Amino acid sequence: MAKFMDVHHGFQNITREQLQQAHDADLAIQAEEGVTFERAWADPESGLVYCLSEAPSADAVQRIHERAGHRADEIHMVPLSL
Amino acid sequence: MAKFMDVHHGFQNITREQLQQAHDADLAIQAEEGVTFERAWADPESGLVYCLSEAPSADAVQRIHERAGHRADEIHMVPLSL
Repeated sequence: MAKFMDVHHGFQNITREQLQQAHDADLAIQAEEGVTFERAWADPESGLVYCLSEAPSADAVQRIHERAGHRADEIHMVPLSL
Repeated sequence: MAKFMDVHHGFQNITREQLQQAHDADLAIQAEEGVTFERAWADPESGLVYCLSEAPSADAVQRIHERAGHRADEIHMVPLSL
């Protein structure tokens, strides 16, 4: 298991409710890939969304995000965290 | 006060000790700009470093990072967080 930071583009004007719904869609199926989404942050102005997860692989993170309807544009393992 | 996610490029092969030292350099002076750095994550392979902070402005975050010797390449306010 490792930590991953993934990034989504194009979420301009996202609301708190929409971010929560997207996150909940991940949480509902994350166990099927052994993924735990821990945090999510969004900037409605730039449209960027960041998600922090613990997962067996970047592919596992992407499979959950794809099935939940929001494929990540970037996924980076972040083995160092403070 | 708002939350900010900032991104640094070019930290390929960064070690845990180097990440901690860079973070400590921020912490040592952050109060002078009213900034609180909360978390930092690094991917030594891509060289990406992410920092999460609470601050009065993106400029305040950048002033601390610059004075600590590591200017951020991107700083995004993240008013939505889960």
